[in-house]
Amino acid sequence: MGDLRNSPLLTDLYQFTMLQGYLRKGMRGRAAFEFFVRKLPPERNFLVAAGLDTLLDYLEAVRFTDDDLSSLSKAGNFSQELLDYLAGFRFRGDVFAVAEGMPVFENEPIVRVEADIKEGQLVETRLINLVHFQTLIASKAARCMLAAGEGTVLVDFGVRRAHAAEAGILAARAAYIGGFAGTSTVAAAVEFGIPVFGTMAHSFIEAQESESEAFLSFARANPSGATLLIDTYDTLKGAETAVRIAPQLAEEGISIRGVRLDSGDLESLSREVRKILDRGGLKEARIFASGNIDEYSILALHAAGAPIDGFGVGTRLDTSADAPYLDSAYKLVEYDGKPRFKKSEGKETYPGRKQVFRLLTGEKMQEDILTLAGDRQEGTPLIEKVMSGGRRISPAKGLDEIARCCREKIRFLPDRLKSLDAASPYPVRISRSLLELYEASRRILQSPPSPDTARE
Amino acid sequence: MGDLRNSPLLTDLYQFTMLQGYLRKGMRGRAAFEFFVRKLPPERNFLVAAGLDTLLDYLEAVRFTDDDLSSLSKAGNFSQELLDYLAGFRFRGDVFAVAEGMPVFENEPIVRVEADIKEGQLVETRLINLVHFQTLIASKAARCMLAAGEGTVLVDFGVRRAHAAEAGILAARAAYIGGFAGTSTVAAAVEFGIPVFGTMAHSFIEAQESESEAFLSFARANPSGATLLIDTYDTLKGAETAVRIAPQLAEEGISIRGVRLDSGDLESLSREVRKILDRGGLKEARIFASGNIDEYSILALHAAGAPIDGFGVGTRLDTSADAPYLDSAYKLVEYDGKPRFKKSEGKETYPGRKQVFRLLTGEKMQEDILTLAGDRQEGTPLIEKVMSGGRRISPAKGLDEIARCCREKIRFLPDRLKSLDAASPYPVRISRSLLELYEASRRILQSPPSPDTARE
Repeated sequence: MGDLRNSPLLTDLYQFTMLQGYLRKGMRGRAAFEFFVRKLPPERNFLVAAGLDTLLDYLEAVRFTDDDLSSLSKAGNFSQELLDYLAGFRFRGDVFAVAEGMPVFENEPIVRVEADIKEGQLVETRLINLVHFQTLIASKAARCMLAAGEGTVLVDFGVRRAHAAEAGILAARAAYIGGFAGTSTVAAAVEFGIPVFGTMAHSFIEAQESESEAFLSFARANPSGATLLIDTYDTLKGAETAVRIAPQLAEEGISIRGVRLDSGDLESLSREVRKILDRGGLKEARIFASGNIDEYSILALHAAGAPIDGFGVGTRLDTSADAPYLDSAYKLVEYDGKPRFKKSEGKETYPGRKQVFRLLTGEKMQEDILTLAGDRQEGTPLIEKVMSGGRRISPAKGLDEIARCCREKIRFLPDRLKSLDAASPYPVRISRSLLELYEASRRILQSPPSPDTARE
Repeated sequence: MGDLRNSPLLTDLYQFTMLQGYLRKGMRGRAAFEFFVRKLPPERNFLVAAGLDTLLDYLEAVRFTDDDLSSLSKAGNFSQELLDYLAGFRFRGDVFAVAEGMPVFENEPIVRVEADIKEGQLVETRLINLVHFQTLIASKAARCMLAAGEGTVLVDFGVRRAHAAEAGILAARAAYIGGFAGTSTVAAAVEFGIPVFGTMAHSFIEAQESESEAFLSFARANPSGATLLIDTYDTLKGAETAVRIAPQLAEEGISIRGVRLDSGDLESLSREVRKILDRGGLKEARIFASGNIDEYSILALHAAGAPIDGFGVGTRLDTSADAPYLDSAYKLVEYDGKPRFKKSEGKETYPGRKQVFRLLTGEKMQEDILTLAGDRQEGTPLIEKVMSGGRRISPAKGLDEIARCCREKIRFLPDRLKSLDAASPYPVRISRSLLELYEASRRILQSPPSPDTARE
C-alpha cells in the first residue's frame, strides 16, 4: 500500500459511500467543517493545539494511485462515477486554524476546512487522526513541563509503548512542542529534526561479565559522554561502580555525563546517588530518572527536593495514559452559505464558521470569546487562514518556533490552570451573535415546516 | 523516510549506542530475549496475544538503506564500524512465540528472540511497539465480545481517534482477532482482508434540505443495503422518516438494511425505534448503535434487553481507554549459554529461556506452568518456533484462522475470567526448575565475588 501516512485509504468506508451520495445528487456546494474538542477531560485544564503542519503536508500530498483505486473497487461496491472522481481528486480547499502550540479550550475550533463538500468530507478521518493525537500528547507534555519547571530536562522515551509506528514519531513531535528537550526515537529526530537522546539498557549490562566492564565498554564506545544505567542489580552499588571507573575513563579523556535510575524509590535513591557521585568527584554528573514517570511523579519528586536533573517520560506520555483520548469532533457548520448543526442528544454543536478572540489582562489570559467568523470582538483572534486552494499560504513553521510559542503562551495561562489538579474551567464565552444563530437553528428544527424533520 | 513501518530508524537511540559497545568489544554471543507482560492491569483478567505475524513481516524485511545510514550518521556521533555493520544488517535469528489469538497471563513470554545479541537488541523497540499494541487491543476486543455474546455484530469504528495512522489499521487487525466482525477502516480491509462496514455521517444529512431527502439519496447511491443514521435531529422522528421512505425505495428495488443510533439513551431509544420499524413493516431492518461504546455499555444494554443488533466500537477500543498500556518488557534472559536477569527493585525478571504449559480439565483451563524451555511438564506447551535464521518456518496464518483460535481458546477460560469485573487471577505456577534458577541467580548477585556487582 505504499506509505500509509499519505494513503487516502486510511479513512472510514462511509466517506466513500457518502461521496457516492453527493456525486449522485450533483452536490458541489462549499462546506465548512470544524474540528474541536467538545469537553476537556477532567484531567486537563487546558489543551495545546498540535498537528496542523503534518495535516497540511497530508492535504498537499493526498491523492489516489491506480493501486488505491483498484484496492478500493475490490473493497466495496462503488460506482464508476466515484472512482473517476477519486482518480482526479486533489484537496483544493482552504484551511483556517489556531497556531500549533496555542492553548485551546472546549468548543474552540482548532482547524476549519472550507472546501467543496466532497473534499471536506473525504479528509475528515485522517484530519482527526492527526490533530486529535498530537493535541492529546502536546497537552500531556505541557503538563509534564509545568510539573518539572524550566531547569529540568524532559525527554520522550515512549516509542516502544506508543500505539504503533506513527504514534511513536508524532508523540515525539508533540512532546517537543509541549516543551520537551528531545526524544529517544531516531526516526523522529530524522523526520522532524528533534534532538535525540539515549542511555543504555539493562540487557547491555546483563550480557557482560560485570557491571563495571559494561560501563567501561559503553563509555569507551560512546566517548562524547555516556549516561550509565545503574539500577540493574543494585542502584547504590551501581553509583559506586560509576565513581570507581571514572578516573580510569578520565585518563582516557572520557567523561561520564550522568547516571540513570530506572526503578525503586527515586526520591531516596537520587539523594544517596547524588552523595556518592559528589563524594566521588562526579559533581558534574547528572542524575536522570525513568520508569513509569508522568507529571504527577515529576511534581512529587520535585516537591520532595529529589536531586534529579532530568526525566525520561515514556509510556504515560505517549499513550496520554490518564486521558488517552479527547471528546472531539469534525462537524459540518455551514453548507452552501447556510449554517448547519446537529441536535443529537448531548452532542449538539454550534452552527456557523467561527472565530475565537482571546482577552488578556496584562500578561494573563482572562477570557476567550467564541463568535462567528467576521464578527469583531475585543482581544486577539486565534484562527488564521493557513491554506488556500490546497496550498500552504506560508512555509511550514519550524518546530522550535512552535515550541517557543507554546512556552510563551503557557506562561499567560491563569495560574490555577497550571496546577495538575482540576481547576475551575477557563471561561469561553459564547458571543451574542453565535447564541442567536444557535437559538434560531434550534427553533427551525423544533417547528418543522413539513412532517419531515426539515430545515429551511 | 519511505515506509515508516519497516524503517530500522523507528527505534530508540540507545540501541545504536549499545551496538557500538557490543561491536567495540567484539561481542557476538547468542542471546535470548523474551517479551512478556509483568502484571495484568486490574481491568483485565486475561490478555490475547496478537501482533506476531506483523512482527515476522518486519523481521524479514528490515534493513538499512543508504538514506537510513546517512540520516543516522547525521543524527549522532557513530563509528564507521557501526555504520558498516548496519549496512549489512539482516535479522537472521530464531523466533519462538505463543500463537496469535491465545490467552496469555503475567510473566508468560509472548515472543522470544534468539539471535546474535546485536540483532536481538536492535529489533527490541519495534518488536514491543508492534506486539504490545496489538495484544492490548485484541484483549480489549475480546472483552467486548464476551459482553456482546455471539449473536451481536461488533465493528471497529476507531481509526479517527486511534493514535495516528498505523494504530488505526493494527487496531482493526487486533479487533478482528478478538472476535469483531470487521472494521470501518478501508486501509485495514485492503491490507489485511478484514470485512469493511460503513454507514453515514451527520454531515451528509445536515448538508441536505431534509433528512428524508438525505436518506433517499444515500440509499439510492448505495442500493445494496444502506444503514441510515437517524439521530441527527430527533431519533424517533428519524426512524419514522426511514419507515416513510421505505415503500418508495422498495419500489425502486432498494432495501433499508438498518438504522444507526449515535446519541441519547440507547436503551429506551432502541426499544422505541424497534417498535417504529416493526410497525412500519421494517422488521428485517437492524438496529446498530455507536457513540462512546465499550464492553461495559454493551453489557449494560444487553442486560437491559435493548434490541440492538450490532455496535460500532470506536475510540475506547482503539485506545484501550480503560487500560491504555500494558506493563510489559523485552528482557535478556540468556547470553552465551548463561541465564541472565535483572534485579531492579520491583522489576525483577525470571532468568532463562522459558516455556509455558497449559493444563485443562475437560474444556476448562486449570493452570499454567511457567518453566524452562526443554523441561517436560503436564499439559500443552504454548511456545513454538516460528522463525529460523530470519525466515518464517510456515506461511503466515490467515486472520480468520487466528480469530477462530481466539474464539475457541476463550471458550476454555474459567468462567470467572470472562467477567468484566476483576476476578481472582488465573494461576501461573512457577516450576521448581525455574524457581531454583531464579534463587541461584539472586544468590550470586547477593554475594558478589568482587567489590563490583559481578555475575559469575
